[in-house]
Amino acid sequence: MKTIPELMQDITSFRDERNWKQFHTPKDLAISISLEAAELLEIFQWSGEDLIVESKRAKIEEELADVLIYCGLMADVVGLDVSEIITKKLAENRAKYPVEKAYGKSDKYTDLK
Amino acid sequence: MKTIPELMQDITSFRDERNWKQFHTPKDLAISISLEAAELLEIFQWSGEDLIVESKRAKIEEELADVLIYCGLMADVVGLDVSEIITKKLAENRAKYPVEKAYGKSDKYTDLK
Amino acid sequence: MKTIPELMQDITSFRDERNWKQFHTPKDLAISISLEAAELLEIFQWSGEDLIVESKRAKIEEELADVLIYCGLMADVVGLDVSEIITKKLAENRAKYPVEKAYGKSDKYTDLK
Amino acid sequence: MKTIPELMQDITSFRDERNWKQFHTPKDLAISISLEAAELLEIFQWSGEDLIVESKRAKIEEELADVLIYCGLMADVVGLDVSEIITKKLAENRAKYPVEKAYGKSDKYTDLK
Repeated sequence: MKTIPELMQDITSFRDERNWKQFHTPKDLAISISLEAAELLEIFQWSGEDLIVESKRAKIEEELADVLIYCGLMADVVGLDVSEIITKKLAENRAKYPVEKAYGKSDKYTDLK
Repeated sequence: MKTIPELMQDITSFRDERNWKQFHTPKDLAISISLEAAELLEIFQWSGEDLIVESKRAKIEEELADVLIYCGLMADVVGLDVSEIITKKLAENRAKYPVEKAYGKSDKYTDLK
Repeated sequence: MKTIPELMQDITSFRDERNWKQFHTPKDLAISISLEAAELLEIFQWSGEDLIVESKRAKIEEELADVLIYCGLMADVVGLDVSEIITKKLAENRAKYPVEKAYGKSDKYTDLK
Repeated sequence: MKTIPELMQDITSFRDERNWKQFHTPKDLAISISLEAAELLEIFQWSGEDLIVESKRAKIEEELADVLIYCGLMADVVGLDVSEIITKKLAENRAKYPVEKAYGKSDKYTDLK
């Protein structure tokens, strides 16, 4: 299994070998993340509740990887450390959703009492 | 800096302490990834070409982390290894976009000659 | 009930009274349509199969209207007639999805036999 | 040019001739609107500021029509009158964005002073 710095290296090398950084404005990367997220979502269109994913695993794998790769490219261009921003955001989420209020509820934090 | 298994542990603990796994169907997680991607994209609405991101870094940091956290939750529920699927997809992309054809071009692989 | 030309007039007057056309590049309007579509989708996050919409009608009403208003703004900027493009696309869809093949099936046209 | 009731009739007939209403939960229609919005947005990926749309008009036409058709299907299923909800939302937007405050500014209403 590769580490985050190794994966970031693989992702940015792929880009740089093709001389693609010139296209990677944060705005166009944000668009790309949205488009890949839509391709992931498309797998579930017309699927009802869709708890069974076995038949769709290969497609999910591919589209989820695309979202993650573009997230890596955004992190690189903006100068963010993926591990650090996840850790920071989880700390914020813990404050927004205290266990005793959020336990077993899917409400948005603004709706929690 | 945390490793991927440590981050996955943090992400799934956050979910399990709140008993939220019951809500996390792949379909609803795919919706959530799309919604967070839209919040990231919103930062760039009406921004023209937007090459300067300094003033927006904190907001990008937060929304990008949200996309990544939901990607981690999807990987967990579907049973995918994040490092592995990125590595596999990059290999596929290398085949789709050979350096000699794709160099300096933003075309989709289906449009490359 | 207003007609399409009356609604288009209302939508573009709203924009022009505020001198907003300067911001309305097709790209930023496409982003805006996506963002409003995400707000509409958010109503259904964590909702399971969600066949009951009564409690959500007011929110759906608002977000669906936002999508439609931005579609009107895009049509105006690009110079498209809303009625005409819908009629044309329905004709294309009828050809792609012949009744005898598509009846009762949610498959994409590329998967219909 | 067709009227809104005529277009709604065309859109719902297309659906009913194929017996597709069974798939059209509000949730899946909201997903579909998002996916079509993403296809519209894809036209502008990697396009920089993209003020010139001539070469892309045919593609925009098609994808914008798809968004509108799904909006019509959502309005039908939820029981909303398209003309009425647009008129109502424009009235709300006029209140949120008074001309004297919003003139020439792309700020969100919550940021207007």
